[in-house]
Amino acid sequence: MAQQERAIRTRKIILEAAAATFDEHGYESTTIAEILERAEVTKGALYFHFPSKGDLARGVLAAAVTTEGVRPHALKLQELADTLLLLAYRLPREPMLSAALRIAVDPQARRQFGTAWPDWAELMAGFLREAKARGEVLAHTDEEEVGRMIVSTWTGVRVVTEGLPGTYDLPGEIALLLRLLLAAVATPAVLPRLDISAARAAHLYDDMPARRAEVAESAPRGISG
Amino acid sequence: MAQQERAIRTRKIILEAAAATFDEHGYESTTIAEILERAEVTKGALYFHFPSKGDLARGVLAAAVTTEGVRPHALKLQELADTLLLLAYRLPREPMLSAALRIAVDPQARRQFGTAWPDWAELMAGFLREAKARGEVLAHTDEEEVGRMIVSTWTGVRVVTEGLPGTYDLPGEIALLLRLLLAAVATPAVLPRLDISAARAAHLYDDMPARRAEVAESAPRGISG
Repeated sequence: MAQQERAIRTRKIILEAAAATFDEHGYESTTIAEILERAEVTKGALYFHFPSKGDLARGVLAAAVTTEGVRPHALKLQELADTLLLLAYRLPREPMLSAALRIAVDPQARRQFGTAWPDWAELMAGFLREAKARGEVLAHTDEEEVGRMIVSTWTGVRVVTEGLPGTYDLPGEIALLLRLLLAAVATPAVLPRLDISAARAAHLYDDMPARRAEVAESAPRGISG
Repeated sequence: MAQQERAIRTRKIILEAAAATFDEHGYESTTIAEILERAEVTKGALYFHFPSKGDLARGVLAAAVTTEGVRPHALKLQELADTLLLLAYRLPREPMLSAALRIAVDPQARRQFGTAWPDWAELMAGFLREAKARGEVLAHTDEEEVGRMIVSTWTGVRVVTEGLPGTYDLPGEIALLLRLLLAAVATPAVLPRLDISAARAAHLYDDMPARRAEVAESAPRGISG
């Protein structure tokens, strides 16, 4: 059991090192040597978990579709918004997420590994179907189309925000996007009940179990620590 | 005069060859030799118009912000929609446009040359300000914010549509995007009067003067031709 736990942790360390290196230099320019140096593991350990650089890219992409930190809410549309706000807040803080987006946006890497976009679009369509069943969404809404548009527009806001001069913060820009999109999708009774703001993104992030554990770990310990 | 015309045409040929090569291989991988070969001009002619590869990239970016083919309309929001629909239709047909987007999305090239995004955002905000003055836009709309969101989301739809499996066509996807966004922006009286469809994009394209000239040129000529 301890051995298995160690293997899981090693795998995670390698994947995080790969993500950080892909994120900095792009997939093509990254070498296995750089990942080894950053991960501080042996070549054998790396190749045991990931036989090729492509397996590392696929591992990063698979890890990036996540609703971690999103909690159940009376309104399904709030859960949808929370997923996207939280992602915006986590992205600049977690190389695993930004590396996945960088791979998806790079045409060459994308041809080799595909993207997580279809998975994200399906996740969004699922939220919208549940929201519609509960009467939160206007009847003429096409869940597949809107789900796809959410993924496209979220990605565009990320790409363009990064490239614009000035200091736009991603959670604020995603909140703006969601307010526009959901105005065209939510029923009039539900719309004013939604909380869509950068402040909510920060709050959700601080409440994530993983984040709490991290804060606890870095806090000064008592004599017994 | 004839000499000046020839210089303008040579400049255009070089810029189009550069755009096509950037579009295929990316800015970094493109060599001046490839551009020369495609343009079929002398090295002297190329360097006369564009002293460096960077000047070619800047030339491509500058040429890509365009409302060519958009005609005056009673509704300013229709002109805004037409600009974006027409762009979607022209993009896969004109390397100058897709090369500009490829440069903008590539983080390395973007750091060197910037993007046309601020110019596009200002163009959109201008349409929205005029539309608001005419009562076409809801009073609480922030023209700068919505202008920026239009550019971001348009870009995202382009990037993601290209990367999704399946055969989504860009004008259709942009029409979908515009119907969502304008539902949150246009006044109830104006919204149903807007024509937002892929068919309109094709129609606008076929009516462009440049396109008409091209069709006329390629048509079989009479004895006098």
